Amino acid sequence: MIPIRFDCDYTEGAHPRILEKLLSTNLEQTPGYGMDPYCEHARALIREAADAPNAGVHFLVGGTQVNYTVIRSCLMAHQAVICPTTGHINVHETGAVEATGHKILAVPCGPEGKLTARQVEQVVNDHFHGPTPPEHTVQPKLVYISQPTENGALYSLAELTSLHEVCQKNGLYLFADGARLGYGLSSPLSDVTLADMARLTDVFTVGGTKCGMLFGEAAVISKPAIDRDFRYALKQNGAMLAKGRLLGIQYETLFTEGLYFSVCRMAVEQAFRLRDALKAAGFQEYAPSPTNQQFFILPDPVFETLSKKYVFSGWDTLPDGRKAYRICTSWATKDENVDALIADIRTAAE
Amino acid sequence: MIPIRFDCDYTEGAHPRILEKLLSTNLEQTPGYGMDPYCEHARALIREAADAPNAGVHFLVGGTQVNYTVIRSCLMAHQAVICPTTGHINVHETGAVEATGHKILAVPCGPEGKLTARQVEQVVNDHFHGPTPPEHTVQPKLVYISQPTENGALYSLAELTSLHEVCQKNGLYLFADGARLGYGLSSPLSDVTLADMARLTDVFTVGGTKCGMLFGEAAVISKPAIDRDFRYALKQNGAMLAKGRLLGIQYETLFTEGLYFSVCRMAVEQAFRLRDALKAAGFQEYAPSPTNQQFFILPDPVFETLSKKYVFSGWDTLPDGRKAYRICTSWATKDENVDALIADIRTAAE
Amino acid sequence: MIPIRFDCDYTEGAHPRILEKLLSTNLEQTPGYGMDPYCEHARALIREAADAPNAGVHFLVGGTQVNYTVIRSCLMAHQAVICPTTGHINVHETGAVEATGHKILAVPCGPEGKLTARQVEQVVNDHFHGPTPPEHTVQPKLVYISQPTENGALYSLAELTSLHEVCQKNGLYLFADGARLGYGLSSPLSDVTLADMARLTDVFTVGGTKCGMLFGEAAVISKPAIDRDFRYALKQNGAMLAKGRLLGIQYETLFTEGLYFSVCRMAVEQAFRLRDALKAAGFQEYAPSPTNQQFFILPDPVFETLSKKYVFSGWDTLPDGRKAYRICTSWATKDENVDALIADIRTAAE
Amino acid sequence: MIPIRFDCDYTEGAHPRILEKLLSTNLEQTPGYGMDPYCEHARALIREAADAPNAGVHFLVGGTQVNYTVIRSCLMAHQAVICPTTGHINVHETGAVEATGHKILAVPCGPEGKLTARQVEQVVNDHFHGPTPPEHTVQPKLVYISQPTENGALYSLAELTSLHEVCQKNGLYLFADGARLGYGLSSPLSDVTLADMARLTDVFTVGGTKCGMLFGEAAVISKPAIDRDFRYALKQNGAMLAKGRLLGIQYETLFTEGLYFSVCRMAVEQAFRLRDALKAAGFQEYAPSPTNQQFFILPDPVFETLSKKYVFSGWDTLPDGRKAYRICTSWATKDENVDALIADIRTAAE
Repeated sequence: MIPIRFDCDYTEGAHPRILEKLLSTNLEQTPGYGMDPYCEHARALIREAADAPNAGVHFLVGGTQVNYTVIRSCLMAHQAVICPTTGHINVHETGAVEATGHKILAVPCGPEGKLTARQVEQVVNDHFHGPTPPEHTVQPKLVYISQPTENGALYSLAELTSLHEVCQKNGLYLFADGARLGYGLSSPLSDVTLADMARLTDVFTVGGTKCGMLFGEAAVISKPAIDRDFRYALKQNGAMLAKGRLLGIQYETLFTEGLYFSVCRMAVEQAFRLRDALKAAGFQEYAPSPTNQQFFILPDPVFETLSKKYVFSGWDTLPDGRKAYRICTSWATKDENVDALIADIRTAAE
Repeated sequence: MIPIRFDCDYTEGAHPRILEKLLSTNLEQTPGYGMDPYCEHARALIREAADAPNAGVHFLVGGTQVNYTVIRSCLMAHQAVICPTTGHINVHETGAVEATGHKILAVPCGPEGKLTARQVEQVVNDHFHGPTPPEHTVQPKLVYISQPTENGALYSLAELTSLHEVCQKNGLYLFADGARLGYGLSSPLSDVTLADMARLTDVFTVGGTKCGMLFGEAAVISKPAIDRDFRYALKQNGAMLAKGRLLGIQYETLFTEGLYFSVCRMAVEQAFRLRDALKAAGFQEYAPSPTNQQFFILPDPVFETLSKKYVFSGWDTLPDGRKAYRICTSWATKDENVDALIADIRTAAE
Repeated sequence: MIPIRFDCDYTEGAHPRILEKLLSTNLEQTPGYGMDPYCEHARALIREAADAPNAGVHFLVGGTQVNYTVIRSCLMAHQAVICPTTGHINVHETGAVEATGHKILAVPCGPEGKLTARQVEQVVNDHFHGPTPPEHTVQPKLVYISQPTENGALYSLAELTSLHEVCQKNGLYLFADGARLGYGLSSPLSDVTLADMARLTDVFTVGGTKCGMLFGEAAVISKPAIDRDFRYALKQNGAMLAKGRLLGIQYETLFTEGLYFSVCRMAVEQAFRLRDALKAAGFQEYAPSPTNQQFFILPDPVFETLSKKYVFSGWDTLPDGRKAYRICTSWATKDENVDALIADIRTAAE
Repeated sequence: MIPIRFDCDYTEGAHPRILEKLLSTNLEQTPGYGMDPYCEHARALIREAADAPNAGVHFLVGGTQVNYTVIRSCLMAHQAVICPTTGHINVHETGAVEATGHKILAVPCGPEGKLTARQVEQVVNDHFHGPTPPEHTVQPKLVYISQPTENGALYSLAELTSLHEVCQKNGLYLFADGARLGYGLSSPLSDVTLADMARLTDVFTVGGTKCGMLFGEAAVISKPAIDRDFRYALKQNGAMLAKGRLLGIQYETLFTEGLYFSVCRMAVEQAFRLRDALKAAGFQEYAPSPTNQQFFILPDPVFETLSKKYVFSGWDTLPDGRKAYRICTSWATKDENVDALIADIRTAAE
């Protein structure tokens, strides 16, 4: 029996409407490298949705790629990234940022994986006013956050605004990794909009890979100085897709009639059904999450039983030896699979 | 009227069989990052086709990406690449190789864009036995060639064998960029096979983007020392596709029943039809090409007339002011379009 | 009044014998880049002193320079450095290691600034056998330690041997930064010899700048694979001094009649006199140090009084607000200045 | 018999006045890293001599180091250096510039080793207005020249002014490598002053190593944006000397009473004596040089005879097989050695 995967949100292909569109346009001829009408249209749709008529919008293929390409485009050799310890760039991207020459200044964070404006200010103050002359350490210049965070948490509008302000005040760039942005913005617990993202960050990404596309990450750049030469960065970093229209077509589809948000909202709802069932069955949350990823502590026998039919993602081992798992829905999660898992959770808990 | 594009070989989507397969597998759930059964199968098919049972096969997304990722994985900081002046990495990849820290030693080449074993030996001798102590200059360590070259030419089996031997003798890696490999191997004028490529190089690529796929480049690595940690390189360089099966499915399709070769052979035949028509009409070849790219010198009035209906690629301006163009077919080129262009060539020449 | 500096060990020029030798050889003509007879002789003297007849010995100018040049020469792009959190490369070299593309995996350490073999093993196990596939994180490949550590502590022979063994077992390089090695080896509390350093590490440095020279760090490389092309690394990293003999002359002088060790031993003795006086006066050690750097907690009024005549180095602020200082002697420390400080310590404590 | 070296200008130590000053200040205590009064004074002297009261002046150790550190500080990842083919950074620095991630766009030059404003303009035009979209190639951003060039030639004030203007017009930085600047400025054939260098470049260096110092290169930065964080670059690139005053003392000495210029002028005069003797003896110049390096074609028997007593530097082999040599004087060249060589030239020519 093939197990049902709830381990992550990139186990299936793409939303059917995307495949239809790829199929119907397949033999059209267009120029390459993102200079085709589909990309143009997709860029316009994203600018409109983000209420950011002057933002640069660039389409890349993957998450690690967009992260290091953006960061490298913002920094001089002696400049560094402030990042929560659990940040994806700090722990799951094989040192891609350092491979471009930049140190990551990892700041301790709680289970939510968030960075506070106060922490950012502290790093800046320590650098410029600490006991060591600043030039003996790297200069903090860019703040990296994820929305939602690695652990599914969301920055509130107030928190984002504070981060924005501390960055403005200190001449820092604010970059938000939105690999799962759709699940964040469409959460009923979010008070942040796409327009807020564009307004409060210098760069943010609109993740496609995990939100209904075959692949694709859009970088939305509010800061003209970063946008100006960004196409060089695309090419130099292997991020300029030859048949760029494949990205344009996918984003165009998702940003037509709000598909990006509706498919993500459904995934969050499925995740909440699972969360409620797990709680009702007496299992403990590892960290509360308002998005499509849920994190629960499962006793070993329960996990063993469930793992015969389902795949979860091992997440952490607590000091007392208990284990936490990620249970993840996506735009492709089927009702029937959620139903089945809920039933099995109830049985396992008995 | 939308012009018919003969400017390059990546203007359409993918071969219909690929799209069918993507569609029929779309809602399957598989693990990510190239660890799925489709990738496994595709790797096996390529190893079999290349008669290289122990080669590493890795799937990447794009050409610039695969080039710098392979090169970076072969070299220490003080080592350099020997490359013909016209090599793609030297002129059309925004310094991606240098951006990873390595100098390119560009060697002058003729209009064919080929490097000779003798030239390689010369670079090595100049380095180790020239007037400058070797450590004051970068150490040549990897030879980069393209098969076919930028200008559509092909290394013969004898030439490849000589390059292989000079590399072996001097401790150099031989890396062949096969972005258009299908068009090369399927040319009636080629005496080189996929197995020769695997046997004579340390790494070569099997280009997908230009040969019938939506995107994709396969790196085939004969040298175990390069293969061993190559998955780290994939991840660090943003080249590990999350939904890796998309690459597996595409390569599996192309390497089933020799589709890769048959679609490319048709494109070469179409190119030959155009070449013959151009020659018959009295136009002069810029450089003879046995593959899907043809290079011709066209008088300005002829180009102007043709460019109302067709797109070619401007290639070079000769010392006497005449202009050369690239006319390119692909797996997707339609008979009717070739017929139309041939007719228009004849008319234009009158 | 010019204050007397005890803040670090690089406030004066060089040992008089070095200046004499520079003067007497000044107008000789020699080839450059470290290929002169003085460098040859100095290399031989160091090999002999380290009982390492086959080691490569290279002379560089500064500490940051030698650290990143060595590290860069050991690692491929995806490989990383294991380092205690307080390691100099992690906190005081402006991200020089990351600027060459390599992540530092900082491991928490106590006030001594030491790394244990067990910690190294843990990092390796977490990487290769943790929940994340190894290729999603950087591969640990080199262990960086300092002897003495940043906080003046010393690895015992047993500790060094354990580190050596864990590195051997796991295919890691062991690199010891010996910027203050002379002060370590000549401490009466050290059971480690220069020959142990050569035997137990793959590379270590013999610091000159802080141990009696105008400038200079010698890299002693036991591993032939690292040594082979190291002169390329010297040149590429701006570390190959044109008038290389200046380094040869200095090392030759220090390694003649054991001058390197005798000048350092005197500095350690002066440091111990200060330590004893501080303890006798009732001040508390921040961390015990068997070398020329002493770390003490001083009440604010005491510091204020002493800082009118002396310069110390601010080191840390404790959780309770008390402040720790570094008080440092060197090969150039004058008896009279130590006497004066001791007297003032006694007075200040009354 | 020890041969007399005329192969380069870094075979001796330092001007006696420098050694005296190092000796007399040896046991003074100063803060490190270039923050001492000697460096302050030396900076002021250089600013004054260059009539550049607001320029940043930084002291580094070596030539390769200062070149790549400056270049890295000027460029973003996708930007490149325009450089004549014979430029030192292109051929004799082990790819140090590429090792920091930047491609060098080498422009063909004649035997003088000069770049023209017209060539610069051509590179810029080809990039921004050529057939390839600019982002597929690196963006030219900095022009690197040497004054004097590798082959001893000098840019005239008119030529420098043209380069300055073309850089200003196109938003390029102009960087002049002055490793032998003293020999250039003090040549009777130069119409360029130190103030011209500061006024017409964004950064230039005042070479010390070859002009009377033990070591040292001063970077003079007119552009505030490059100067602002340059101390980070010093530290990150291993170029911030711990005992920085050693550089301050040396530059202070050379820029007191015009010593820098007078010692260099004497070397040029000696070179002219040799040049005149060689010409009078009927030997042919390889390339005329107005500075301390002279380049002559010598018949093999002549070279063999002279090389029993003298060391020259092999420079080039002409198409007809004849060989060119560099014969070099310096601040340390002795009258008696020049006399002896002149006599031997005459004899050899008979």
